Amino acid sequence: MADETSDVVVVGAGLIGLATAWRLAADGIQVTVCDPTPGSQTSSVAAGMLAPVTEVEFGEDELLALNLASVAAWPAFAEELEALTGQSAGLNRTGTLSVAYDIDDAAAIRRLADYQRRLGLEVEELTGRQTRKREPLLAAGVAAGVWVPGDHSVDNRQAVATLLKAAELTGVRIIRQRVTRILTTGTTAVGVELEDGTSLRAGQIIAAAGPWSAQLAGIPDELKVPVRPLKGEILRLRVPEAYRPALNHTVRATARGFAVYLVPRPGGELVVGATTSELGYDTRVLAGGVFALLRDARTVLPITDELELVETVAGLRPATPDNAPILGPSGLDGLLWATGHYRNGVLLTPITADVIAETVRTGVLPKLAEPFLAARFGAMPKVTR
Amino acid sequence: MADETSDVVVVGAGLIGLATAWRLAADGIQVTVCDPTPGSQTSSVAAGMLAPVTEVEFGEDELLALNLASVAAWPAFAEELEALTGQSAGLNRTGTLSVAYDIDDAAAIRRLADYQRRLGLEVEELTGRQTRKREPLLAAGVAAGVWVPGDHSVDNRQAVATLLKAAELTGVRIIRQRVTRILTTGTTAVGVELEDGTSLRAGQIIAAAGPWSAQLAGIPDELKVPVRPLKGEILRLRVPEAYRPALNHTVRATARGFAVYLVPRPGGELVVGATTSELGYDTRVLAGGVFALLRDARTVLPITDELELVETVAGLRPATPDNAPILGPSGLDGLLWATGHYRNGVLLTPITADVIAETVRTGVLPKLAEPFLAARFGAMPKVTR
Repeated sequence: MADETSDVVVVGAGLIGLATAWRLAADGIQVTVCDPTPGSQTSSVAAGMLAPVTEVEFGEDELLALNLASVAAWPAFAEELEALTGQSAGLNRTGTLSVAYDIDDAAAIRRLADYQRRLGLEVEELTGRQTRKREPLLAAGVAAGVWVPGDHSVDNRQAVATLLKAAELTGVRIIRQRVTRILTTGTTAVGVELEDGTSLRAGQIIAAAGPWSAQLAGIPDELKVPVRPLKGEILRLRVPEAYRPALNHTVRATARGFAVYLVPRPGGELVVGATTSELGYDTRVLAGGVFALLRDARTVLPITDELELVETVAGLRPATPDNAPILGPSGLDGLLWATGHYRNGVLLTPITADVIAETVRTGVLPKLAEPFLAARFGAMPKVTR
Repeated sequence: MADETSDVVVVGAGLIGLATAWRLAADGIQVTVCDPTPGSQTSSVAAGMLAPVTEVEFGEDELLALNLASVAAWPAFAEELEALTGQSAGLNRTGTLSVAYDIDDAAAIRRLADYQRRLGLEVEELTGRQTRKREPLLAAGVAAGVWVPGDHSVDNRQAVATLLKAAELTGVRIIRQRVTRILTTGTTAVGVELEDGTSLRAGQIIAAAGPWSAQLAGIPDELKVPVRPLKGEILRLRVPEAYRPALNHTVRATARGFAVYLVPRPGGELVVGATTSELGYDTRVLAGGVFALLRDARTVLPITDELELVETVAGLRPATPDNAPILGPSGLDGLLWATGHYRNGVLLTPITADVIAETVRTGVLPKLAEPFLAARFGAMPKVTR
C-alpha cells in the first residue's frame, strides 16, 4: 500500500490543532492537519474571552494555574503570529468587568471575588455607581461590580484566520477531509484514515478534534476519552457608529441569577453568550436560547434593543467531566490528546500548543500538564512515554 | 433616440406588480416589468395572512369591502395560477384563531368581535378552554378566543415564485433593473428611465413599487403619493417533526397588550410577526424587535422555546395615511398607481391585479376601487381617464 506519510498528523484544524501544528512546523517537523472545514466549528462560534479569573470555579486550582500560564503566554503568542503573518491575532487587552444586576446577584459575585482574592488574583470590588462609571450604558440599577484587569478577550475568528495563515506560511499541509479512523498496529497508532478512504501514515498523531474527539474510530474502548458536545448559542450584534463603543470592557453579568457575557470588539461587533444545552451534536439555534440571551443582555445593557442582530449561531464546547482539558499521552504509543478544552479553548491555545509541541519533541509531558492526562478518568491508560 | 418600447411597463416585481403584469399579458398585451430583484423585498418578507376580518379597524369599512372582495377572489386566482404553472400558489385555507392571553386582552378582542359581527362578518367567540381545544399547545392560561373561519393565509414566498413563473410563461418580459425616473411629455407619462441610463417607452405605466413608489423621480411634486416605508421585523421558525403541527390555524394573539401573530405552513415553518418601526428605509434587524416577537410568541405558545430560529428579517410595508392602498389614475395620463398596500399586499393581490388590468383595458376604474384614488390625499390630481 503506497500510503502518504507525514512526521505528524493533527486531527482537527480549530485553534488548538492549528496552533500546535504551527509550533511543530516551526521546529522543522513535517506536519499535516486534517479537517473538512478548518477553523469553522467551535473556534469560530466562540466569544473568545480570556478569563482565567472570571471563569474559575471553586476547587479548580490546577486548572486555574494552567489558565493563568496561558493568559500570560497570549501577548507573546499574538506578537509572534502577527510578526509572521502581518495580520492581527485579535488580542484585545481591555480587562473584564463583572456586573451584578440586583442585590442577590451582588452577593454571588462577591463570594466569587473573595475566593479569587484568596487565590492571589487581582480583583477590585466596586459599588453600583463605580461600576456604571466604568460602563455608563449599563442599566441604571446595577447593584455592584468587580473589576478584573487581567481577564482579556480575543477575536476568535480573527485568531483562527491568522493561525491558519501562520500554519500555511510555516509549511503545514492542510487536508480538507474528515479523519474517520485512527490506524493502529498493536498498541501503536501509525496513521489515520480519511473520509475518501485513503490513509496517511505518521510517527505521531495529535487528536485535537474538540467535541468530535470521542467519535474517532480505531481507539480501543478503554482508551477513549469522555469528551462530549455541550451546545451553546451565541449572538453577534452590531453597534451603530453613533453608540460606539457601547462597552469599553468585556462585561460578565449576573442578571436576576442568569449569567450572560457581552464581549465588545474594536470594529463595533458585540458578542453575547452563551446558552448551555446537553443536546448532543445538535447545532440548531433554538428560539428559547436566543430569547434568554436577549432578555439577559437587555437587562444589564438596555441599549441592546437598538443594536442590529447580525448573527445567531450555535457551537459545541468539548466538555469533560471535570471541566479541564485532556492533554498528552493516550495509552496508545504515537497518539497524543489535545482536546476537552470546554469553555477555555481560546484561552488555552498558546499553552496547549507549547505543551504538546514539547511532548512531541522531548517525549516528556511538561509538569504543568500532568493533572490533565486522560488517565485521570476511570479506566486508566498507562502513561507510555 | 432608439428607445425600446412596450405596451405596458410595470415598475416593481412584487406580488402586486407581477400579478398585474400576468393579468395584462394574458389579455394579449405586451408587458415589461422592471425590478432589480424581483419578488425579494416586501413580498418575500411578509407573513402572508389573508385577514380581511382580523385586520379590520374601526371605521375602515370601504377598505373592508375591498379586502373581502379580494379574499373571495383568492381561491380562483390560486387555481388559475396553479393550472398555468403546475406549482402551488401557497394558499392555505385553515382559518384564523384570535387568542387573548389575559382578561384585559380578552376584553380587547371581544370589542373587535362585536364590531366585526355588526359588519356581518362570521366570527365565533370562544372560552379559554374552547380556544385551547382548537390549539392544544397554546399557553394553559389563555383567557379567550375568537374563531374566524374566513381569514386564511398564503405562503407569500411560494406565491411570488409562482407568480414570477406565471408572468414569464405568459410572455411578460422581466428587466432586472431599477427604474430611476418616470419620463413625461407635458402631462403624459411616456416611459421610464432605467438605472443603466437606457429608456423604455410605453403607452401605459403602472407604478407598483411599494414603499419605493414615493421615490420615483419625474412625477410632479403635487402628484406624488404619500407612501412611506413602515419597517417590520419577522421571524421564521422551524417546528421539529415530533411537534408538528405546533399550530393548526393562523393564530393572532394579544399577549399582555402586545399583538403577535403566528402563521403555520404545511412544511413545518412557523412565521412570527411583526414589529412596527418608523425608521425610513432601514432594514436592519434590531435585537429589541426580535426580543419582543420571541417574548410574545412564547407567552401564548410556550413551545416556541423549542423551535429552531431559522431566519430573522426586516421588510418595509408601503404605508399610507389612511392604511388603504392607492389605486388607479395618478393625474398624469399614462401612469396608474398600484401601491400603498400597507399590511394587506398579499391579501389584495388578486383584486388589485383585476382592477388595474380592467382600468388599462377599458380606461375606467372599477367602482369598488374609487375610494382608493390618489386624489383623496391633499393636493388633488384630477381624474384624467
